[in-house]
Order: sequence, then structure tokens, then C-alpha cells
Amino acid sequence: MEGEPTLRLRVFDLNCWAIRYLSKRRPERVRLIGDTLRREGFDLVLLQEVWSEQDYSDLKVKLADCYPFSHYFRSGVIGSGLCVFSRFPILDTLLYQYSLNGYPYMLQHGDWFCGKSVGLVIMKISGIIFNPLCFPSLQLHAEYSRDKDAYLPHRLVQAWELAQFIRHTSKAADVVLLGGDLNMHPEDVGIRLLRGWTGLRDAFAEATHFEGCKNGCTLVPDNCFTDKSELLPFPLGIRIDYILYKAISSFTVKCEELKTTTGPAPGMDIPFSDHEAVMATLHIQRQGQPAGATLGTADVALADVVTEARTEVGVGLRAAQQQRYSSGRMAVLALLLLLLQATAALGTLAGLGAEQPFPKLSFCLLAFLALGILILATGLHLFHTMEVKMLHGTEDQMSMALRALQERP
Amino acid sequence: MEGEPTLRLRVFDLNCWAIRYLSKRRPERVRLIGDTLRREGFDLVLLQEVWSEQDYSDLKVKLADCYPFSHYFRSGVIGSGLCVFSRFPILDTLLYQYSLNGYPYMLQHGDWFCGKSVGLVIMKISGIIFNPLCFPSLQLHAEYSRDKDAYLPHRLVQAWELAQFIRHTSKAADVVLLGGDLNMHPEDVGIRLLRGWTGLRDAFAEATHFEGCKNGCTLVPDNCFTDKSELLPFPLGIRIDYILYKAISSFTVKCEELKTTTGPAPGMDIPFSDHEAVMATLHIQRQGQPAGATLGTADVALADVVTEARTEVGVGLRAAQQQRYSSGRMAVLALLLLLLQATAALGTLAGLGAEQPFPKLSFCLLAFLALGILILATGLHLFHTMEVKMLHGTEDQMSMALRALQERP
Repeated sequence: MEGEPTLRLRVFDLNCWAIRYLSKRRPERVRLIGDTLRREGFDLVLLQEVWSEQDYSDLKVKLADCYPFSHYFRSGVIGSGLCVFSRFPILDTLLYQYSLNGYPYMLQHGDWFCGKSVGLVIMKISGIIFNPLCFPSLQLHAEYSRDKDAYLPHRLVQAWELAQFIRHTSKAADVVLLGGDLNMHPEDVGIRLLRGWTGLRDAFAEATHFEGCKNGCTLVPDNCFTDKSELLPFPLGIRIDYILYKAISSFTVKCEELKTTTGPAPGMDIPFSDHEAVMATLHIQRQGQPAGATLGTADVALADVVTEARTEVGVGLRAAQQQRYSSGRMAVLALLLLLLQATAALGTLAGLGAEQPFPKLSFCLLAFLALGILILATGLHLFHTMEVKMLHGTEDQMSMALRALQERP
Repeated sequence: MEGEPTLRLRVFDLNCWAIRYLSKRRPERVRLIGDTLRREGFDLVLLQEVWSEQDYSDLKVKLADCYPFSHYFRSGVIGSGLCVFSRFPILDTLLYQYSLNGYPYMLQHGDWFCGKSVGLVIMKISGIIFNPLCFPSLQLHAEYSRDKDAYLPHRLVQAWELAQFIRHTSKAADVVLLGGDLNMHPEDVGIRLLRGWTGLRDAFAEATHFEGCKNGCTLVPDNCFTDKSELLPFPLGIRIDYILYKAISSFTVKCEELKTTTGPAPGMDIPFSDHEAVMATLHIQRQGQPAGATLGTADVALADVVTEARTEVGVGLRAAQQQRYSSGRMAVLALLLLLLQATAALGTLAGLGAEQPFPKLSFCLLAFLALGILILATGLHLFHTMEVKMLHGTEDQMSMALRALQERP
């Protein structure tokens, strides 16, 4: 079996930060990314935050001869921003939307509008069924407020759903590959949960040879587009973009080389994006025994991670229940105010208190204010009800997983 | 191989119509359903529209000894309404939410608030990996206006996503089973698409022995809870609740018997629900060759169905684009009106036209009206943008599937 030929696969992953009108020097950077991809000739390219379909179309035209196969995942109001370019045929795709995705009223973060989702692509390369997944950042910018991270439960629900999605869709795959911006530090509970529950291995930790930013960081102060003040607690930068992989059936995958870009592109004054790109060279070989069977061998550690994650989700659940209660109470108060006003107006119409002038304008303004609060608070109440359901559902699933782990012989 | 023991599985499926405060005689019916399930001792029970978690908890307590394993899928504002009771252990679950789910402003249909989703359960029975899926109705009541069915594209997107979800998650399963209310007639394009693209077989069509309402109908005029006027075009009733199945690996599944309830429950004056229950007895046996390999043998017919579905999705896409345009235009007009008012107000403040009295109250009312229209139209615009993205994405996926079908040798 050892004599089987090795498949060498070069993968490129980048969070492109290509938001129309908002991202700095976007057209220039997208052109630069396209030129580099053409020149380097990777086998598989996973891009995130390509929010404008026009940018995708431009890249598609430019890369048509070296990456004849591509797919853009559409979802949400703005889109998923995910796209894949490949030298090999894409057989099928599937988009999975997370159930929780930030808060619609946190407009400055915008997560809710992006329809956060993970895109699955299925390919067959030299007879090997290959499931590359492309995922966008799980909750924007939450990593900067690490002390009071209101998004942590949402991010854990997403990490859990991502892990479940991978487990359920990868059963017929020989090799699974994940590339994207997870917005979590390598030691965070979400990453440990994802890696533990799926058995995925971190290309940075496994690479025989590494070249790039220190510690594999992908958000570094040297990059002219990063917000320096946000990186103050991390003078070296942080590693939040990952390439993860595993072999499922009788294959082994090894990461021969991992590279990151280091600020400005060669011969240019700007980098590709505010994130550094991650490039991995993987060796895939058929073998008798599947390697990397991390599941089962480390059940105790995994149970600890799932317990930790379940606790955090529980904290989020109680916060969401509190918010649901507050918004519900606010809606009831606004409704009472409206009813009171209606009574007062009816009383005036019936001729009561006719000796005093009726303050029409301020009455109207107050009614509109109450109506506005009623609509807003009802909307919030519905949203937090949904949030409670999803957090509760995830807590249930995690408990079920823990029971299954504990019952294993 | 023929000598292998046969697994005999009795499945119960029912759309329970258990909406708090709205469904008639709900507590009585839920009790009745629980009593019947206890008495009959099925192997697997798939329930839909159990909207109240309290009803699920009551059923769980009542059924604890004969169905020791159960799961309730939480999602959306109200919940998914899906739950599963089983004699055999549930290993894992996954909830998949459809990307399109009706319109938030169609309050009378309520689909948008229910977080329409499909629940997947994974079980292992006598060594057979078993993937039962439970799905709720795909768009409420749309089947009654068959001539002008505005929901058809949404329902097709859901049928397609359901088919894709089944294909991707069932690769390691031996047997796949689907039970639920599809809200489509057996000959509808959505059903043909789902069956063709997944290879699932219809228990009603395959059953050796059938007993119940004529033609397997599950929404019948004899049921005292159905709306007779809506069933006028279908005097015998319609069949919209299905049990579908297939064997994936080296197993065969046969439907020995299919039954439906026929109106009132035995010895009672009321039926279980406004839908009839569907009960199937399946025989599962290990065999050399997988049976029912419908895929591949009927590629041409399948390509026709996918083409038909893609055309319908295209019609929906153009309608959604039109609505997106209209709502965008409305938002711009409201914004212009607000700007005009602001100019007038500033003019008055600057002392222009001071000889005429300024109509404060009507000015205020007009401004609030314009603001209301602006918010509403912007919301609609965002929603239809999302709808366009999803319809476009599905059209793409269907085109990819068609290419794959045509390229097959």
C-alpha cells in the first residue's frame, strides 16, 4: 500500500476584506489577489469576505484558465462572501446557515446581515473524495474584548454547529479540509471544541516546515490595514485564520509546508488584505490504517472541552432569558401607556375635562413614541426568544454528546 | 446473505396541529395521541407541529417507559414543532434551517416565525445505521391556491435544500427515512424533485398492503377539523403527509403495510389532528446488492424535473427582483419626502413664509408617516434582497446538477 502515489495539494486561504465602499483600496487589492493566484497556480483557493459579486465575477474571468472551476455562495442580505476557485471539478456544494448570528440591532458589527454560513464543496481528485469547507469569520471583532465577550455563547453555538455539520456531511469523504477565519485564538474553547469534536488537525501545529509571521499570526501590527489600537494587548499579533484537515477513511494527510504572507505583497506597497493569507502544501496518501484517530483516544479531554463550552452556552442562555424578559416587560409597559392614552382620548371625546385645552401635539408625539417602543420591544422580544431556543437546543445537544462520551467503553 | 434476520420497524408519523390557544381541543387531542402511542407501541414516532414545549414534556413523561428516547428540535421564535420518540437510542441529531421561509409580513401564514427546518436523527438499530428525518410542512396552506401559488419558488428552494441535505448527510447511513407533511400533492414538481434527486421511495406507492383513507389522503373532508371550503376542489381529500425511505448500502427496505387513520379516533368523537396519521411497517434486510438504485437509471426524467424546478425558481427570482426594486423605490420616495419636510421646517425656522401659520400637527403626522414608510420599505428591501440571493443560489445549484446529469456517461 505504501507504494501508492502521493497527491500533493497546494491550498490558499484568505479573508479578503473586500467590502464595497468601506474597505480601503479594494479594487487594487482584488486585482493584486487575482494576479498572485494566477501566477502561483494553487490547486484550491478558499476566499472569504468577497462581499461584492462583481469582485467574484472579475476574479472568475481573470482566473478562468488556471482555475476553471469556481463557486460563489449566496446568502443573507449582503451575501456570504464565500467563494472557492479550483483546478479540479467541483461536484456539488451545500451552504449551511448558522442558527445564531449576532444581533440585528448591532449595526456596527453587521454580522446579522451577512447570513453567516459555512460553504461545503465536494470534489474528487485522483479518485479521492475531497470535502473542502470554506467558512467565514465567526462573529466579527469579538476577540478584542476578551474580558467581556458578549458574543462568546453565539460563537460557541456556531463552533458546535460547524463541528456537527462537518461530522454529518463528511462520512463519505476521504479527506476533509477547512479554511477560514475563525476569529478565535488557538487555545480558545471554541477552537478546542471544534478540533476535539471533529478530530481536525491544525496545519500550523503539524507543518514540517513553516515560513511567515511569528507564531503563524494572521492579524499582525505590520499590516498597514489593521487597527493598531485593537492589537495593543497582542504585540506579535494574533492567529485567527486556520487551515484544518483530517483524513477519514484509509488515507493519511501530512502538512509539508505552511506559509503566511507578511504584510505588503512582493513589489507592492500594500498587502492583500487586513488579514494575512495562509498557504498550505498537503501530502495525501492512501494507507492501510486511517491516521489521526484523535477521537476515542482523548475522550476525557474532549468531555472537559464540551463541558466548558456547555457552561458558557448556559451563561449565554441565562443572559438571553434575562433580555427576553426585559424586552417583554418593556413591550407590556408601552402597550399600557398606549391604552392609557386611548382612554384619555376617549374621555376627551366624551366631553370630560372639556374646560381644559387638549394638548394635541404632545399627545400625538407621546402616542408615536409609545408605538415605536412597542414595535421595537416586541421585535427584540421575538429575537431573544429565538436566541433562547437556539442556545437551549445547543445546550441539549452538548449534553447528549457528553452522555455519549461518558457511556463509551 | 438471504438468511440474515429481518428487522421489522413500525413507524408513526403525524402533523399534530398543536398550536397553543389556536388549535381546537388541543390538550384533549395531545392526551389522545399519547394514549394511542403508549397502547400501540411503535418503534419510531415522528411528530410535527408540536409547537408548545409543554406538550412535548407531557408526552415525554407519559411515554417514558415505552419510548425511552426522544428529542425536541428547538428553532425560530415559536420553535420547529418537531419531535421524535423512539424505542431505540438516539445517537446524534442535527437541525437544518431552510434559507427561505415565507414572508415575515404574511402574519396570517406565520411560516416565517416558525423557523422552518428539518430535523435529522441518527440511530443504530441491530447494527444498522438509521437516519430518520422529521420534517414539518413546507409552507402552510399554499396548496389551496394552486392556480396562483406565490409560495411555489420558496417551496421548491426548500424541496431542493431538503434533497441536498439528505444527500450530504446520508452517505454513511444504511437506511434513510423521511416522515412529515410536505404540503405538496404526489405529482407536484417539488415531490418529483425530492424523490428524483435523493432516490427516496414513497411508502404509499410501494406498500404491499394499504388500509385507510382512499388514495392515501391525509387531509380529508371527513375530518371534523379540516376547513371544508378549502377542500372543495378535492372531494376525496389530498395526500400531503408522506413516509419516504431508501436503503443506501447493502440493504433492502420493503414497505409491508401502510395505514392512515380515518377521521375520529376509535371510541372517540374527535380525530388526533386536522391531518390523518400515517403508519408504516417496514422490513429491512441485509443483501448483496443495494436495491432501489433509481439514480442513474432515470437520469433523463430527473433532468426534466430539475429543469422544470429551475424554471419555477427562475420565475420566483424575477418576481423577487421586481419586489426588491419596488420596495427600494418606495424607500427612496419616503426619504425624499422626509428631506423635503426638513427643508420646509428649516425654511420656517429661518423666518421664510412667517406670515402664514405653520401647520405643526399635520406636519408632524406626515413626518411620522414618511418615517414609518421608510423603515418598512427598507426592511422589505433587505428581505427581498435576501430572497433574491437565495433563489439565485438555488438556480445556480440546480444548473450545476443539470450539468452533472448531462455529463454522466
